[in-house]
Amino acid sequence: MSLPRIAVDAMGGDEGVRVMVSGAALARRRHEQFKFLLVGDEKRIKHALDDHPNMREASEILHCDDVVGGDERPTQALRRAKTTSMGLAIDAVKRGDAGAAVSSGNTGALMAMSKLALRTMPGIDRPALAALLPTLGEHDMIMLDLGANTECDARNLVQFAIMGAAYSRIVTQQAEPRVRLLNIGTEDIKGTDALQDAAAQLRAATGLAMQFEGFVEADKISRGDVDVVVTDGFSGNIALKAVEGAARFVGDLLKRSFMSSLRSKIGFLISRPATDLLRTHLDPNNHNGAVFLGLNGVVVKSHGSANAAGVANAVAVTARLLEDNLTQRISAGLAELGEERLRETHSSGAGK
Amino acid sequence: MSLPRIAVDAMGGDEGVRVMVSGAALARRRHEQFKFLLVGDEKRIKHALDDHPNMREASEILHCDDVVGGDERPTQALRRAKTTSMGLAIDAVKRGDAGAAVSSGNTGALMAMSKLALRTMPGIDRPALAALLPTLGEHDMIMLDLGANTECDARNLVQFAIMGAAYSRIVTQQAEPRVRLLNIGTEDIKGTDALQDAAAQLRAATGLAMQFEGFVEADKISRGDVDVVVTDGFSGNIALKAVEGAARFVGDLLKRSFMSSLRSKIGFLISRPATDLLRTHLDPNNHNGAVFLGLNGVVVKSHGSANAAGVANAVAVTARLLEDNLTQRISAGLAELGEERLRETHSSGAGK
Repeated sequence: MSLPRIAVDAMGGDEGVRVMVSGAALARRRHEQFKFLLVGDEKRIKHALDDHPNMREASEILHCDDVVGGDERPTQALRRAKTTSMGLAIDAVKRGDAGAAVSSGNTGALMAMSKLALRTMPGIDRPALAALLPTLGEHDMIMLDLGANTECDARNLVQFAIMGAAYSRIVTQQAEPRVRLLNIGTEDIKGTDALQDAAAQLRAATGLAMQFEGFVEADKISRGDVDVVVTDGFSGNIALKAVEGAARFVGDLLKRSFMSSLRSKIGFLISRPATDLLRTHLDPNNHNGAVFLGLNGVVVKSHGSANAAGVANAVAVTARLLEDNLTQRISAGLAELGEERLRETHSSGAGK
Repeated sequence: MSLPRIAVDAMGGDEGVRVMVSGAALARRRHEQFKFLLVGDEKRIKHALDDHPNMREASEILHCDDVVGGDERPTQALRRAKTTSMGLAIDAVKRGDAGAAVSSGNTGALMAMSKLALRTMPGIDRPALAALLPTLGEHDMIMLDLGANTECDARNLVQFAIMGAAYSRIVTQQAEPRVRLLNIGTEDIKGTDALQDAAAQLRAATGLAMQFEGFVEADKISRGDVDVVVTDGFSGNIALKAVEGAARFVGDLLKRSFMSSLRSKIGFLISRPATDLLRTHLDPNNHNGAVFLGLNGVVVKSHGSANAAGVANAVAVTARLLEDNLTQRISAGLAELGEERLRETHSSGAGK
């Protein structure tokens, strides 16, 4: 089976066309079957392609002039869904002209446009943004939602758990990934009503193809003993950015410490391969590519400040989700739970 | 002026009496004017004092048998306020028998007991838990609330900002500390209604002895360009623990990297002073001691797993707050804003 092609919003992100095209080219050097629909300014895309002859026969260009601004309100961007590079990349997925879309543009606009064009799956009220994060264990773990939904009720959280578990089964190859809800303590009484309701529902449910193991605190998510961390978009965004910031903070401190004396400078030079390994492991570009789960189609968000290697990772994530039929797997998970049971849980309101 | 004595709940925490007494003794070796009321099992306290002759003349023992359990519900602990070491330490502050209390026990119980015994200041609806955190800048920064209030409205957040600024003025010696609200983006439209309301009120207020600078994202709190980060207790707890967990994660990765080859092991040994410096900087014991702001009295929470050096830091934080009259300073800040204006803001409900 040949892989459906990937629509790339070539205009989004801090660096724009050059980084997006270089990133796609880099991904393609590792996987020759990748094909692309590059959406954006034709002249600039063609110029960028000059440096990447391997991309030319694998790419078609869909020209447009209009770009969604980084600070633009999603409601405003929605009006230009049919003229912007972001909107046209998503539309290609809707029309079946591409299997998935990747964009480094405005997250809120990407979410709004994707939801409107692709619609949520039956049984899902709201899509969630999910990313792979490094752990000390064997596999990466999945955290969701990372900012698509500022406020969530128990029903949303249960749906996120099901979607996250489906994604984790692809990543970890485990039949029943370990799932936990992010909370400020592990005792039953901790946290909001929404968290407690969601925990009760997940504990009671059977046949979900996951091991639900209760709550997890934010200092324990990277130890490798949890595969899926479920949270509302506000807390998830805070936790993700706090981790990124702390990693950078420690890196900066380390640099300062190493530069604090001649002796430690020498030590640093000698142990450079070790610190380079650490840097590689912590570089957000190596974990780039968050996916909107719960849509009838795959849309991947690449970080606005990602470099070409980062974009290549986001493209690789996209290809993997296509290959492994993520969308169908989530549908199967939802069917397992039974849509009617999902509807039943509706009564529990937003607890925070 | 002699410093009022500090009531120490000698029974709380994972290690109990020995660590609490050793910690107090360590703090006293650095500041000879410290005096203590040690609350708990007399026999065990006396035994612990055998190792610390410098503590004996500086301490009085208040005997009790009863201890609040680590997992005990706050409502249950409240009933034993008059018999437990935690309750009696707080009661000593209420009676004026001590100037402040320190405990390593159950946070929820400590909060509930402190609030009931000491009451909140006029103009403050809820106390908040505030801690000093390391930054890349000159000073530590203050973050609050760290878990005392799971859900907060705009009015709570405004009060937290005023209390945090008062604490920061003591720590940084700056007349107008830079204050920001923790959010998932810096644009005006980001976050909950409560955050947007609080931002509008802080922007509009004058004479607050702070520079309110809008929102901050969780990856930028440690850069040294913000002195006070204000948030609800749920997000604050998530952010704090995410930072702690990430720092530990990076430390573990670094250790693994250094041990990955003979070359990097040698590099590690040579640069040891540098990595030790880093470890010291990141050790949570060196930042131990979170204070409940907004009470008519000083109550400091020491981490349950703190070692003697950590307890000593919590005692030092307590003494500093006493010396610098934190309680009076917060009152002054509230008076500046005007209690009536605080009441006016009541209309804005819990936005999340």
